[in-house]
Amino acid sequence: MTIIYKAHILYTKEQNHFEVLENGYIAVKNGIVVGVSTDLSAFKSQCPNAEVVDFADCLLIPAMNDLHVHAPQYRNQGIAMDLELLPWLQNYTFPEEMKYADLDYAERMYRRFVRDLWRLGSMRSCVFATIHTASTRLLMHLFQEAGMGALVGKVAMNRNCPEGLCESVEEMVEGYEMLINEELGMKNLVRPIITPRFVPSCTPEMLRACGELAAKYHLPVQSHLSENKDEIAWVAELEPESTCYGDAYDRYGLFGKTPTIMAHCVWTEGEELELMKRRGVVVAHCPTSNFNVASGMAPIRKFLDEGLRVGLGSDISGGHDLSIFKMMVYAIQVSKMHYQQNHEIPFLTLSEAFWLATKSAGSFFGRVGSFEPGYEFDALVIDDSDLNHDNYSLLHRLERYIYLGDDRQIVHRFCRGQEIKEPHV
Amino acid sequence: MTIIYKAHILYTKEQNHFEVLENGYIAVKNGIVVGVSTDLSAFKSQCPNAEVVDFADCLLIPAMNDLHVHAPQYRNQGIAMDLELLPWLQNYTFPEEMKYADLDYAERMYRRFVRDLWRLGSMRSCVFATIHTASTRLLMHLFQEAGMGALVGKVAMNRNCPEGLCESVEEMVEGYEMLINEELGMKNLVRPIITPRFVPSCTPEMLRACGELAAKYHLPVQSHLSENKDEIAWVAELEPESTCYGDAYDRYGLFGKTPTIMAHCVWTEGEELELMKRRGVVVAHCPTSNFNVASGMAPIRKFLDEGLRVGLGSDISGGHDLSIFKMMVYAIQVSKMHYQQNHEIPFLTLSEAFWLATKSAGSFFGRVGSFEPGYEFDALVIDDSDLNHDNYSLLHRLERYIYLGDDRQIVHRFCRGQEIKEPHV
Repeated sequence: MTIIYKAHILYTKEQNHFEVLENGYIAVKNGIVVGVSTDLSAFKSQCPNAEVVDFADCLLIPAMNDLHVHAPQYRNQGIAMDLELLPWLQNYTFPEEMKYADLDYAERMYRRFVRDLWRLGSMRSCVFATIHTASTRLLMHLFQEAGMGALVGKVAMNRNCPEGLCESVEEMVEGYEMLINEELGMKNLVRPIITPRFVPSCTPEMLRACGELAAKYHLPVQSHLSENKDEIAWVAELEPESTCYGDAYDRYGLFGKTPTIMAHCVWTEGEELELMKRRGVVVAHCPTSNFNVASGMAPIRKFLDEGLRVGLGSDISGGHDLSIFKMMVYAIQVSKMHYQQNHEIPFLTLSEAFWLATKSAGSFFGRVGSFEPGYEFDALVIDDSDLNHDNYSLLHRLERYIYLGDDRQIVHRFCRGQEIKEPHV
Repeated sequence: MTIIYKAHILYTKEQNHFEVLENGYIAVKNGIVVGVSTDLSAFKSQCPNAEVVDFADCLLIPAMNDLHVHAPQYRNQGIAMDLELLPWLQNYTFPEEMKYADLDYAERMYRRFVRDLWRLGSMRSCVFATIHTASTRLLMHLFQEAGMGALVGKVAMNRNCPEGLCESVEEMVEGYEMLINEELGMKNLVRPIITPRFVPSCTPEMLRACGELAAKYHLPVQSHLSENKDEIAWVAELEPESTCYGDAYDRYGLFGKTPTIMAHCVWTEGEELELMKRRGVVVAHCPTSNFNVASGMAPIRKFLDEGLRVGLGSDISGGHDLSIFKMMVYAIQVSKMHYQQNHEIPFLTLSEAFWLATKSAGSFFGRVGSFEPGYEFDALVIDDSDLNHDNYSLLHRLERYIYLGDDRQIVHRFCRGQEIKEPHV
């Protein structure tokens, strides 16, 4: 079945350029983009029975993708920002994550979390859950029920963390295999992702088991990398044979052997950067988190120049804002601070930030994040009439929405062609 | 007449500490705070006929103060962020400001601007208008009509700017004297403020005339200072006898002879910092603008340690966000980047950022920004029930509102004791 949507269509095929179709049409067949055009008749002759849905003066853009977010830290969003990393983990993050042993609590919080991703237009996410298999399974089902895409990670951790958040390697493997079975019938929209928390919380045995699981079931991998300097020094101590932090994952098959996302990479350079390139490891850039936790400013321009793939992550609750639109703003701002220090490092443009959040990040989920033929139709319809008070150009309307807008202007959301209604809380 | 408001009351008498009254009462007589207490009976015995207004589970906090904002750049909010400073000024800022020769256009835009300040809870603002006396006068009246406090500056400029934004020194003086007459009957809530744009756009004669006006009419002064390094070098060229950028204002009586705000001060140090201290010049810290325009990160901790007075400014449209709550978040983030580089520079805490936006900034407008006895009752009532989904502490509720909230949660606004209703657009 083909549906044709009419709106002002904006997307980025390429990093440096917006495709803009004023009063454009996009034809979608079985959830997949057939093409875009400003000429309806071409589509009409191809598929004469197609329904035309008119979004009038709204903007139609690819949906957002969140490449790094901790679902069980949802309750801690926007609190305890006065604390340093360690007391923050010990007094807020870990105690909160322990609560997810309670399935009722998990359901209450996870429902709100999924609803708020929906609200802000993130149709695909890479999510850290907790060690708890049952509540992780529940989270997968909530995404499935909502119709939103997600890679959901049961977190593997067995050292340097409170007892209530440790499990054995065997329990980890068993839990994952349960989730992998669960996945059947989910049509690939919701999948598990192997998620060692980070090197300091996983023994070599745990890391090895994670790598083996990823290889055995062809599962993607996510973790944290080079977020701050103390952490890097700690990893060097824990894994003295590794030549860099990234290598400590690589030795266990967790660095690009299957598709891999590493969050932060604030201090990645030299050998680690080269290894990421060789292995095709994807960077989840989390600029608000890097500010809030005082990690630093990741060199995204350099990563792009080197050909690394980069997407954006909200990193709740190190980050305080679940909106990937706001991550674009912050990513541009971080890049402007690098530019301020060295004018030979051009700052990120709006099209680049948009491309990071859509096509670049979306590629981790398949053909997602663009409106080119063959892409899954993940889209947002933006009614920015309250922001468009004096007739801006389409690109300025999009820019204003990104800088000033919020959930109020998002009036329709699509994932894989299906309109996604507000998830039940 | 005395009114007693009941709510959870939070404010900062001191930089490092929140006053928190759970189910507290605040007594307000003729717009002035009589006192706060958790004991209603004390107030009731003092003023038995006082009306009690119960805001139930809401938070009651001092209103926001915006120390630096360009009203005529309102239409440019959130656009053209890909441009460097110079093309941005030439292609966007100056052409837009020229439109304010048209009083109808000015009214349409300024009404929206005042409404949006209201929406976001900024009850007092230091505003740059344009060179146009008539539309600046209109803006003063719109604030007056709304009941919101403002220092409104007709911008003085006569060099290095397009012809349509130049006026003679005589026209500037004449225009200001008209505004000063206009002020009569405005009960001091709305006043003109002497506003040389910045040194590069004012000839020595213009600067001298500005200084003379400020002295003659006891008017405050606002301008820009040390925003970026090129600008500082330019000022050194234009005013070779000055020992620093600040001194170039000081020589014309524009640096603390009357109360003075300088926006940005990103690169202020050494002699300039000492001069600001001696003269009591106030810093308007505009962190989003400093990111967006790639200016740099102002050393606010240093300014505070040195005893400078600092407030926050949205700096629309170099800044993209009119919310002073979001300026608190950004100010903390900037300070965390200084901390990341040098752990001997402690980052700003939430109470410090809140104090900057309320009591510290408010002091520029009189006894404003706190709930101590004798303060003007400028306040916001925050209904954060949609953010308080799992029973947070009062301080965490405030923190969450600051980080996550927006205009939707502000349910009442007061300025000088009067409830301010939505200004007519």
